[in-house]
Amino acid sequence: MNRRDLLLVVGASAVGAAIPPTPAAAAAGGDDRARWAARAQSLTPTLHETEQAPLNLVRAIAAAELALRFRMDIEGPAGGLAKRVLRKGDSVIVDFGGHRTGYLSFRLETEGREPDAPARLRFTFGEVPTDVAEPLYPYQGELSQAWLPDEVVNVDYLPQSVRLSRRYAFRYVKIEVLDTSPGFGVRFESLKAHAVTSARGMPPALATGTPLLRRIDEVALATLRDCMQTTFEDGPRRDQRLWIGDLRLQALTNYQTFRQNDVVQRCLYLFAAFPRDDGLVAACVYEKPGARYGGLHIVDYAALFNVTLLDYLEATNDVETARDLWPVALRQLAILGRDVDADGRYHDPGNVWIFIDWARDLDKNASIQAVLIYAWKATLQLARKIGRHDDVRDFPARIERMTRAARAHYWDAAKRVFLSGEKRQLSWASQAWMAIAGVSSRAESAAALRAAVNDAGAVKPVTPYLYHYVIEGMLAAGLGREARALLEKYWGGMIAAGADTFWEIYDPAQPLSSPYGDIHINSFCHAWSCTPSYLLRSGRLT
Amino acid sequence: MNRRDLLLVVGASAVGAAIPPTPAAAAAGGDDRARWAARAQSLTPTLHETEQAPLNLVRAIAAAELALRFRMDIEGPAGGLAKRVLRKGDSVIVDFGGHRTGYLSFRLETEGREPDAPARLRFTFGEVPTDVAEPLYPYQGELSQAWLPDEVVNVDYLPQSVRLSRRYAFRYVKIEVLDTSPGFGVRFESLKAHAVTSARGMPPALATGTPLLRRIDEVALATLRDCMQTTFEDGPRRDQRLWIGDLRLQALTNYQTFRQNDVVQRCLYLFAAFPRDDGLVAACVYEKPGARYGGLHIVDYAALFNVTLLDYLEATNDVETARDLWPVALRQLAILGRDVDADGRYHDPGNVWIFIDWARDLDKNASIQAVLIYAWKATLQLARKIGRHDDVRDFPARIERMTRAARAHYWDAAKRVFLSGEKRQLSWASQAWMAIAGVSSRAESAAALRAAVNDAGAVKPVTPYLYHYVIEGMLAAGLGREARALLEKYWGGMIAAGADTFWEIYDPAQPLSSPYGDIHINSFCHAWSCTPSYLLRSGRLT
Repeated sequence: MNRRDLLLVVGASAVGAAIPPTPAAAAAGGDDRARWAARAQSLTPTLHETEQAPLNLVRAIAAAELALRFRMDIEGPAGGLAKRVLRKGDSVIVDFGGHRTGYLSFRLETEGREPDAPARLRFTFGEVPTDVAEPLYPYQGELSQAWLPDEVVNVDYLPQSVRLSRRYAFRYVKIEVLDTSPGFGVRFESLKAHAVTSARGMPPALATGTPLLRRIDEVALATLRDCMQTTFEDGPRRDQRLWIGDLRLQALTNYQTFRQNDVVQRCLYLFAAFPRDDGLVAACVYEKPGARYGGLHIVDYAALFNVTLLDYLEATNDVETARDLWPVALRQLAILGRDVDADGRYHDPGNVWIFIDWARDLDKNASIQAVLIYAWKATLQLARKIGRHDDVRDFPARIERMTRAARAHYWDAAKRVFLSGEKRQLSWASQAWMAIAGVSSRAESAAALRAAVNDAGAVKPVTPYLYHYVIEGMLAAGLGREARALLEKYWGGMIAAGADTFWEIYDPAQPLSSPYGDIHINSFCHAWSCTPSYLLRSGRLT
Repeated sequence: MNRRDLLLVVGASAVGAAIPPTPAAAAAGGDDRARWAARAQSLTPTLHETEQAPLNLVRAIAAAELALRFRMDIEGPAGGLAKRVLRKGDSVIVDFGGHRTGYLSFRLETEGREPDAPARLRFTFGEVPTDVAEPLYPYQGELSQAWLPDEVVNVDYLPQSVRLSRRYAFRYVKIEVLDTSPGFGVRFESLKAHAVTSARGMPPALATGTPLLRRIDEVALATLRDCMQTTFEDGPRRDQRLWIGDLRLQALTNYQTFRQNDVVQRCLYLFAAFPRDDGLVAACVYEKPGARYGGLHIVDYAALFNVTLLDYLEATNDVETARDLWPVALRQLAILGRDVDADGRYHDPGNVWIFIDWARDLDKNASIQAVLIYAWKATLQLARKIGRHDDVRDFPARIERMTRAARAHYWDAAKRVFLSGEKRQLSWASQAWMAIAGVSSRAESAAALRAAVNDAGAVKPVTPYLYHYVIEGMLAAGLGREARALLEKYWGGMIAAGADTFWEIYDPAQPLSSPYGDIHINSFCHAWSCTPSYLLRSGRLT
């Protein structure tokens, strides 16, 4: 099932039917939601804008041996741009030497006769060389082509200072002159990027570690910085949206780096304020033009809302917010618990999006069982920390039942791995999540993870999102050395491919793959890939 | 020679070499020009904006029998637009029921899932059905395709109120949805035009005349209104520029209709303020981003600056302005006079743009001789009205010499027509301008014009601009009935073709012709075609 199908199914019917409110959730009525929305609004961070000059003019050269198929050769310093007269059919690629989220401005001057026509220009914004090295059309993807990073702009009155009105994510800008008039050409003076982020400055660089680990940390920081806007966006190129799964990893990294905890707080309040009518949090919320319900639900993301709230409390000691949002956390489990049977086994109702990873053939039954156990455990901890013992009196028994069910249905005692689904599928995901959830002992987890990683037939992750949880699973299993090696290999693979920020999708076996049918719609700065900075700076991985 | 070639030649070398200033022109130094520019600026009129709702949704139907090849069938009232959900690949044509210059705004609403992508839309603005009924690409024209009236717009955050930032000239708007996302469609609510003009209200309709003449007057008024912006533009679709040839006809019509004489005054000051270094007025000036020299020169347009100043004085009695700009008028003749030989004959230096009309094969020698005589006579009259007799003491003798030369070189006494060039070309233009200039007697003019009009081999005009001067020639020749018949036939031909405003080019024999190589770049609201309202309302033609 591809994402498009999933979204349409989920749009129609998500996470079962509405159920009667629990007493705690009853407290979270319209009044609370309005108050939470106002609180989120009041926490909107300021965006900081930094003017940046381009470094070089570059040329894309086909290079079949590289993961992204092109390398960039320097034509000359970017200072040459202001001297170059561009006419109909001419184009140039400007390299800003790193990734940023932001705007583009320039002074459009003319050469030749007095300009007697508008200039029609096409801008293509590249996060990576492929974006500007090859045509974006015909577009093969399933997602809206309105996300493709190109723009046709008509500038009527010349010379003119222009600032493009839309925000882009880019290192490269390809400029094509579609037309001026036969009598004049154009020159771009003072071409500048205006980077925007809500991050206040960069944390100090890592003082220890190998050069590779330090570079991975640097790129991870840039990734998070460029995704930190008025919320934690998933990716600044496309979607630009706050998703729970991404938020959790961004928040963890933020606590170790930018420490802008008020942005995490704002995001938690946004999810609390804009749930489905019955209180199930949305997988994502929209911020613009106004904050609102995102219309999509993901089982694992709803469960991870609670984990994210616990992480926030642990990082900030903001008990007041944790108490304020407690009814939301409790409500998630009340709703998700409807699909857990008396023996503690979660049953996929079949019309619900369970994410875990973009790996196409992944069977998610084992993983989601583990994610839910993990969420119940986190929620229990949260309740204890804020003194809501009464609300969770039945949690320990439930967790025990769910853990028993996980072992009963997914643990293969002979092979010493978790297998998922009717086909008894072996995947990294299942072992990682069971380890994180504590379903397997430390020794079992270590054996299971090693078995999966060493089995070429096991379903591997394709996203940095799931790779993060594999590393978490390894750490839970005491496999610190393997975790570090995996981080170096996987994130280092993107570094080797020339990444300035980490990507939404990276399958080392198929670096040009896209879950959307076209690599040009992939996001190459995607915040769920920023966790190396969390892992390295928290001391969890050294 | 096509326009493109002409422009390039003229860009390089225009109207001979610079010559020493005459005493009068010496007064017009940098100080005067700065003062004139400031005066022009102070006369900038206010633009009035009127919100207008569309009338119908229409569909273009091929109709080979019509001049413009398409007719518009009504699909339903425009109120249906807000209910129509448009998805990727859908399109609709909205008909505002008449022409306007202005902006477009709408509220972009969505249907389906919460909008998870921008909407990418293409708008095509049609002055006539052909603009929206057939593809604009591949474009065949010589002028910049940046003038083509289409625009791709990305709307990021939905729902959203949008006002497109560029100004367009249109009756029809074709909207195409290039993409939204698979999960949602868009609806256009409150789609509105915002018509802008500096005209303050419409003059009362003609009380007399046939229905056809009254409709011609109405369309002519709409044409002038939509070209009246902060200057008299030639056409609001393309160029959007102040040209002397167009200005003269707009000003004459304005005195009889909108009577916004300060706009004429502003335009005269703009030409005075931004001439070539030696004082030759430009054929056009640019207004935006700042008022400036147009870089192009046309012999007949420089001569007509003086006529326009005289017209202005006669319409307004504003002696102060006429005196202020008198050095400019005198300077034009000093410069143009360099190409007039001792016997009074003007010699085309060959590297100068002489316009007269867009008719491709027209020999312009006779016409330009007559235009110059007309300009010298007008300048003489102007001098007398403002008491500058000393400056024009030699004018009567010069006019006599030029008139003798005109007859000696162009009048064929046997055929009783003016013939132009080595091939002794018979054209409407030569007869008309000689009649206007008074080179031929009333009876000679009448005979010559009748001979040309009745000779199928004579070169005919292709623009309303020259048709106007043919009518002026007929009136000078006492051919009132023929003048009115020509007006009814020529401008009535555009009415029959469905014109809401009159066109830049209309060749009844080839209604799809373009001097630029592509009909889609023609302007269908072009102010030099607005003179029927002048002719009908001034009583010159009844």
